[in-house]
Amino acid sequence: MTSTPEIAKARTVFDMMREQSSDPPGVTRTSYGDGENFAHRTIAEWAQEISLEVTHDCAGNQYVTLPGRDRAAPKVVMGSHMDSVRHGGNFDGAAGVVCGMAALHRLHRMNRQPERDLTVMAIRAEEIVWFPCHYAGSRMAFGLLEKEEYDAIRRSDSGRTLAEHIDELGFDSAALKSGKSYLDRNDINCYIEVHIEQGPVLQNANLELGVVTGIRGNLRYRYCHVDGAYSHAGGIPRAFRQDAVFGFVEFAQFVERYCLDLEESGVDIVYTIGEAYTDAESHAITKVPGRFDFKMDIRSIDNDVLLRLDQDLRAEAKRISSERNISIDLAEVSNAKPAVMDESLRAAFHKQLKEQSIETMDIGSGGGHDCAVFAGQGVNSAMLFIRNDGGSHNPEEAMEMEDFEKAADVLCGLLDERFCTGDK
Amino acid sequence: MTSTPEIAKARTVFDMMREQSSDPPGVTRTSYGDGENFAHRTIAEWAQEISLEVTHDCAGNQYVTLPGRDRAAPKVVMGSHMDSVRHGGNFDGAAGVVCGMAALHRLHRMNRQPERDLTVMAIRAEEIVWFPCHYAGSRMAFGLLEKEEYDAIRRSDSGRTLAEHIDELGFDSAALKSGKSYLDRNDINCYIEVHIEQGPVLQNANLELGVVTGIRGNLRYRYCHVDGAYSHAGGIPRAFRQDAVFGFVEFAQFVERYCLDLEESGVDIVYTIGEAYTDAESHAITKVPGRFDFKMDIRSIDNDVLLRLDQDLRAEAKRISSERNISIDLAEVSNAKPAVMDESLRAAFHKQLKEQSIETMDIGSGGGHDCAVFAGQGVNSAMLFIRNDGGSHNPEEAMEMEDFEKAADVLCGLLDERFCTGDK
Repeated sequence: MTSTPEIAKARTVFDMMREQSSDPPGVTRTSYGDGENFAHRTIAEWAQEISLEVTHDCAGNQYVTLPGRDRAAPKVVMGSHMDSVRHGGNFDGAAGVVCGMAALHRLHRMNRQPERDLTVMAIRAEEIVWFPCHYAGSRMAFGLLEKEEYDAIRRSDSGRTLAEHIDELGFDSAALKSGKSYLDRNDINCYIEVHIEQGPVLQNANLELGVVTGIRGNLRYRYCHVDGAYSHAGGIPRAFRQDAVFGFVEFAQFVERYCLDLEESGVDIVYTIGEAYTDAESHAITKVPGRFDFKMDIRSIDNDVLLRLDQDLRAEAKRISSERNISIDLAEVSNAKPAVMDESLRAAFHKQLKEQSIETMDIGSGGGHDCAVFAGQGVNSAMLFIRNDGGSHNPEEAMEMEDFEKAADVLCGLLDERFCTGDK
Repeated sequence: MTSTPEIAKARTVFDMMREQSSDPPGVTRTSYGDGENFAHRTIAEWAQEISLEVTHDCAGNQYVTLPGRDRAAPKVVMGSHMDSVRHGGNFDGAAGVVCGMAALHRLHRMNRQPERDLTVMAIRAEEIVWFPCHYAGSRMAFGLLEKEEYDAIRRSDSGRTLAEHIDELGFDSAALKSGKSYLDRNDINCYIEVHIEQGPVLQNANLELGVVTGIRGNLRYRYCHVDGAYSHAGGIPRAFRQDAVFGFVEFAQFVERYCLDLEESGVDIVYTIGEAYTDAESHAITKVPGRFDFKMDIRSIDNDVLLRLDQDLRAEAKRISSERNISIDLAEVSNAKPAVMDESLRAAFHKQLKEQSIETMDIGSGGGHDCAVFAGQGVNSAMLFIRNDGGSHNPEEAMEMEDFEKAADVLCGLLDERFCTGDK
């Protein structure tokens, strides 16, 4: 298979990054660590080879720009992150940055003239395993971190603060703390993020690319608990039991049934009870359990669905509690609102896919992405997912370069049609 | 209310034992400890006051006998234990011994002549919280403990061995180790145990006394586990999840439904999942759970029901595993067989209850009792339960003396009719 120069370069860049950050099994690119730094340098060198502008903000996020005719016009930002989890895959995050670079490279090679700046943003510190802070890199670019956080948040492996890691690389935590931001929503026309899919949805649908409808919001119930009464597993008949486990079982069954009904009617929903346990201090095989704790995470791209569900779950918890003479307490819930993708950009992606005869589907993003920060700032945002067989955050992650090339074609086509002028 | 002399004495004995073993809240009568020893002495003194025979076996079990006309004929044993759990109630165990004493006292006072020896057995060490060994006292009386156990089993509070505690009180662990037994099933006509109920079944049915149908057998599943796969709580759609918790939930729901159906058709059954938990090392609110462990205890007085249930649960576990692409493994199960109470003795109890115009019911015993040892030895056995409001093994245990008196009336009537001669 012959490749265009930018796809050949993309292959080389992926290979270099994999080799440099190899940590079998998989790769490790710690936020503000060697692997991430090398990835940023590799992108900068590519930009210099094709004479694109390279700048950095005070947090070390890197911006590669193909200048537009009107440099003052709000720019197009194509971003993703360069860090990875420990023993992660080579493409989670990096694929989006490399895809943006390939698109700029091709537009540049074709002498396309953008009407406004087209900027690839290589974002720092997206993987929460390193710093306990969501989307640290993109949020710092917008000046969204509190100044206290820079000295409070420490990297999980080094134990050193975010400020120390920023300054160590020659960036400027003091400026960030004083409120300096690099990005302003008013200076951004739109944000586009290409990313590998996290679940095998496209893989199973046998489709290379998917257009993201939104980034799911969530309800997080961290403190659910069932209070019953401990009693003798043999001596107490069922009618007099206050069994916390079977109370939970009936409730969880309701959660599943409720969500399946939504799913069957076409509503986007996933539900997880990731932690669930009797009390190790008091439980025993011969005791009716008097206490059960659990944590729930329920996500949808439709926040109204989530808010209604919260009401309905609480009503059902109350009903079961009363019927079983126990107390199911869902306690407080946090609600992260969904990020809805821009209709116009989604339509533009679909148009490109159709023109290039690439069959596709709409797909919800379950996981969070830097895109949520841009959307949260009111920037028109869109994401394109690339098929991935192995699930993200693990070394089995498996993106095919053929699929990546199609993503680059689509992205480049969209940029060209929407933001460039001149002969095609 | 005026009482007969034996009921007045029973009240005094209960009060003395409560005072002597008081350990607020409730009483503590450690096996081979002061409270148990005092209770045995109190019974012995009562026996001496009314000129009954008192003997002991090498394990310190105490036997009070109203001699029969034929001393060689197999005797009637009325037993229960004198120890209690820590902060337990005053009547769990003791009520059975005191009730037997009250019956012998009355028969003696009425000059009734038993055809065979009527013996009240005050049993040692029934509560498993002290020595990690089921029914130690009654099993030693039959010579059923292995000789190695005497030096291996240690009391939970003192850390000293069973043999040391036996010898300290002047009994003879060496004889027990050499195989000496006091009881022989061929020398026992039948065994009768009066005991407070463990659950509030009689309490809720508003009945003073219940005739026990059997001591439930059980299935104990100690190693059940569900294996799924950990994955991203947001990114993975439901169809591709291998969720261990919801696999458990569906299975547990089946267990409940299955058992409720049995219960509705009149079958004796109780089911408990006393321990159930995700893996604390790997679980997280944002992860689809890949592992769930649980322990089940299911009891019935009908062992065929239990064996069929085991088959059916395994089949359902397999079905759910296949449907959800997980593995529900029930692993090995232990099956303690039910102890069925003697039909003839049960009928005799019912006859007495009817004659004395005491409304009653048949009741299964969920918890284990020394009676299970006698039944296991092939001795015709029966139990009479006395209403108890507060549940056993706790200081709220609440037996009314009026109910106790009725139990004494019934027991005495049964002994008189079945085993005594002479004018009534």
